[in-house]
Amino acid sequence: MLIQALLYPQFTTMDLVGALQPLALLPGAKTELVWKETGPVASDSTAAIVATTSFADASVAPDVILVPGGGTPSVDILEDEEVMAFLAARGANAQWIVSVCTGSLLLGMAGLLEGYRAASHWAVIDTLDSFGAIPVHERVVIDRNRCTGGGVTAGMDIGLTMAGVIAGEPLGKALELAFEYNPAPPYGTGHPSIADEETLAMARAMFSQSVPTERIRDIATRRQA
Amino acid sequence: MLIQALLYPQFTTMDLVGALQPLALLPGAKTELVWKETGPVASDSTAAIVATTSFADASVAPDVILVPGGGTPSVDILEDEEVMAFLAARGANAQWIVSVCTGSLLLGMAGLLEGYRAASHWAVIDTLDSFGAIPVHERVVIDRNRCTGGGVTAGMDIGLTMAGVIAGEPLGKALELAFEYNPAPPYGTGHPSIADEETLAMARAMFSQSVPTERIRDIATRRQA
Repeated sequence: MLIQALLYPQFTTMDLVGALQPLALLPGAKTELVWKETGPVASDSTAAIVATTSFADASVAPDVILVPGGGTPSVDILEDEEVMAFLAARGANAQWIVSVCTGSLLLGMAGLLEGYRAASHWAVIDTLDSFGAIPVHERVVIDRNRCTGGGVTAGMDIGLTMAGVIAGEPLGKALELAFEYNPAPPYGTGHPSIADEETLAMARAMFSQSVPTERIRDIATRRQA
Repeated sequence: MLIQALLYPQFTTMDLVGALQPLALLPGAKTELVWKETGPVASDSTAAIVATTSFADASVAPDVILVPGGGTPSVDILEDEEVMAFLAARGANAQWIVSVCTGSLLLGMAGLLEGYRAASHWAVIDTLDSFGAIPVHERVVIDRNRCTGGGVTAGMDIGLTMAGVIAGEPLGKALELAFEYNPAPPYGTGHPSIADEETLAMARAMFSQSVPTERIRDIATRRQA
C-alpha cells in the first residue's frame, strides 16, 4: 500500500505528521513524500522534512494521497499550476484522497471536491463552496473516497479514522491505544464553539492576516473562469 | 528563546512534532534540532527530519530541551553514552526539560529525573522508578522545571501546556484554538483504562516486543551500578 504525501514550503508540520504517523505504520505501507524535487522542504515549525520523491518520479496511482495545510503558504500554492496539475492527476487515480486543515483548499483548487461534502480549518471552511464543495463543520468528513478534516490537530483523528477504514477497525483501535490518544486539551478552547471571546479575537487576528478568506475566494473564482 | 530538540534515528515523529509545533511558533522562538551530526535523521513514520545543529555546536544553555520518545530505538539509545552525556550536560543548564512519551526514559538515564514526579507512555511508565523517578499516571506532569508526559499524541498537550507556561495562558489558549485542538478520537480506546480487552491485548503484544520493560529496568540498574 502506497501512501503519497505532498510536501510544500512552509506547510504545517503537524498536519502532515498527525495523519502520516498511523498510516505509515500500517502493515505493508510504503510512503512517498513528494515535492517538485527531492530534498529537504521547510515546514512552519522549522523542522525540514526530506522529500523522497520528485513529482516526475511519483507513482501515478497511490493508494492514498495525503495533503497537509498551512497558513499563507497553503493559499499561495493554490496559484502554483504545477502543483495543482500534479494533484489533479494523482487525484484521478488515487484510491483515497485525504487532506488535513487547509489541505482541502488545495484539493478544491485541483478540482477534486466538486459536489463533495468536505471539511477544513474553522477559519476558512466557509470558503470551500467557492471550489464547488459542500462545507461540513465536522472534524472528519468522508464522502465517497474523499476524507477531509479540520485544522492542524485533526490530522490525528483523520489518520486514525483512515487507518481503520483501510486496515480494519481492530487495528485502528489498537493504534489509538498505542498512540495513547486520550487527549486532555489544557485550555478547552480548541474550537470557536467553545472558546471565550478574548481567545477567539486573538486567533481570528492571527488568521485574518495568514489565511484571508477574500483572497481564497478570489483565487477560486479565477479557477472557474 | 531557544528550543533545542533532540533527534535520533527512528524516533517517533509525532512525539517531536506535537510538542514542537506550538513551541516553535512562540514569539521570538528559535530552534535547534540536534543530533551527533547535522543532516537528515530518519523517524518511525518514514519522514526524515533534518538535524540543523550537531552536538558539538549545540547551545549550552537552551531555554527548553525537548526529548521525543520512540519504540525500541528509544530503549537502544539509553545505552549510547554520547547521547546521555549530551542530555546530562544540557539538562544541567536548560531552563525547562521537556519529554514526550518514552523520552522520559532518556531523561531518567541521563540522571535528570532523580526524585522528580514524571510521566511516560502507559506501556513503560512503571519502569520510571528504576531511574529514581516517581511515576505519575497523568497525561502532563510538571515538577519544578521538568515537564514529562504520556505517549505519542500527548506531545500536543505537553507543547500547548508549556506554551502557556512560557508565553502566558492567553497565547496558549489562542494556539489551542488556532490548532483546532478539539479532539474527537474515533474509537475511544486511547488509554488502557478505557480500551476493550481485545484492543488492549493487541497493543500490549505490539509493545512486549518493541519496549520490553525488563530490558529497560536492566539498563537502568546498570546505570546505578
